[in-house]
Amino acid sequence: MPIYQCVTSKTLSPETKAAIASEFTRIHVESTGAPEPFVNIVFGDLPLGSHYLAGAVRENGTLINAIVRAGRTLETRQALLKSLSAAWSRLTGQPERNLVLRIEEADAATIMEAGLIMPRPGEEAAWLVANRAALGEMKTAA
Amino acid sequence: MPIYQCVTSKTLSPETKAAIASEFTRIHVESTGAPEPFVNIVFGDLPLGSHYLAGAVRENGTLINAIVRAGRTLETRQALLKSLSAAWSRLTGQPERNLVLRIEEADAATIMEAGLIMPRPGEEAAWLVANRAALGEMKTAA
Amino acid sequence: MPIYQCVTSKTLSPETKAAIASEFTRIHVESTGAPEPFVNIVFGDLPLGSHYLAGAVRENGTLINAIVRAGRTLETRQALLKSLSAAWSRLTGQPERNLVLRIEEADAATIMEAGLIMPRPGEEAAWLVANRAALGEMKTAA
Repeated sequence: MPIYQCVTSKTLSPETKAAIASEFTRIHVESTGAPEPFVNIVFGDLPLGSHYLAGAVRENGTLINAIVRAGRTLETRQALLKSLSAAWSRLTGQPERNLVLRIEEADAATIMEAGLIMPRPGEEAAWLVANRAALGEMKTAA
Repeated sequence: MPIYQCVTSKTLSPETKAAIASEFTRIHVESTGAPEPFVNIVFGDLPLGSHYLAGAVRENGTLINAIVRAGRTLETRQALLKSLSAAWSRLTGQPERNLVLRIEEADAATIMEAGLIMPRPGEEAAWLVANRAALGEMKTAA
Repeated sequence: MPIYQCVTSKTLSPETKAAIASEFTRIHVESTGAPEPFVNIVFGDLPLGSHYLAGAVRENGTLINAIVRAGRTLETRQALLKSLSAAWSRLTGQPERNLVLRIEEADAATIMEAGLIMPRPGEEAAWLVANRAALGEMKTAA
């Protein structure tokens, strides 16, 4: 976690996906203080005819769902939304008016990565040290 | 928001998708009083062999997840489920016994559309007026 | 419900999918006591270049989201996570370090299957008897 799920009607080049992934990861780490090695970004397609808005086909829309560990302030989550929306628009050329973004909170106690129950926000440093062996090849330096 | 995510093993024609989108949009607006321009419907496929039920391949199933802003009564949400289930069955010919539907509530304070934090249910009218300029080309008349 | 959504970069044979579906279904029923006929498993792809971790393309990752009815103890949900993670790794050969799993709780009162509002955990037996006619062809014996 987090998982940023981005589904879009826009055809994105590998370079644009890489730029979005890099920028979303940077924004997440800066906004929340979470360690970078756990930031997932996933891209999916909205083929023409698969997305409707107000009952009509939407040809140029993007839906972003950000699943993050629960426990950040509302202020942090809203700042995250603003940064993500602006970054997506800047990197893809899609106007912000075409975007829908949501932050979904997930209880760290029911998330498992690398076979380990995740720590709550703020408890990462001790968790990384305690689980260094299990995390193994993962880059554990934030 | 809302986002109605419909994934199905059934091959739907563009006409059927349009009919479902239109009907789900109508049901949402009538049930909740939300403004029509924000109602998203997304269709996805469940190719044969990608869906299992009770450990066996399910050849004729549909999963619908409705992400709506939090704050409606349980009565409203259950009425919404009943209307959606009946409408899908009527428009696709799939029996209701093949459907799984869920309503997932999302906090409006962590949803962003058109670069704006969304209002809570019931606060839309003032929000639409206050943000007319930013909403721009969106059809803001419910 | 539940719905186990498994998206993976790994190409899975029909036999492996069937084995995962069978094992996840068994684990769910044993861990929660829920009736087998309602256990959904869905597989999706993460094509190369659609998944990034820490800003770089992830070539060998799996994301599993388990939507289950709310009301089980944290102990039950964590035991479920451990069993699922180990089973996926054993059946696919993917190391657990490549997996992200989450359990998401959904309120049974806003889930509809076979046209019926679902019962809360523990209330299934009475619900199955009361709705035998509506459930019809579904296998209602757990």
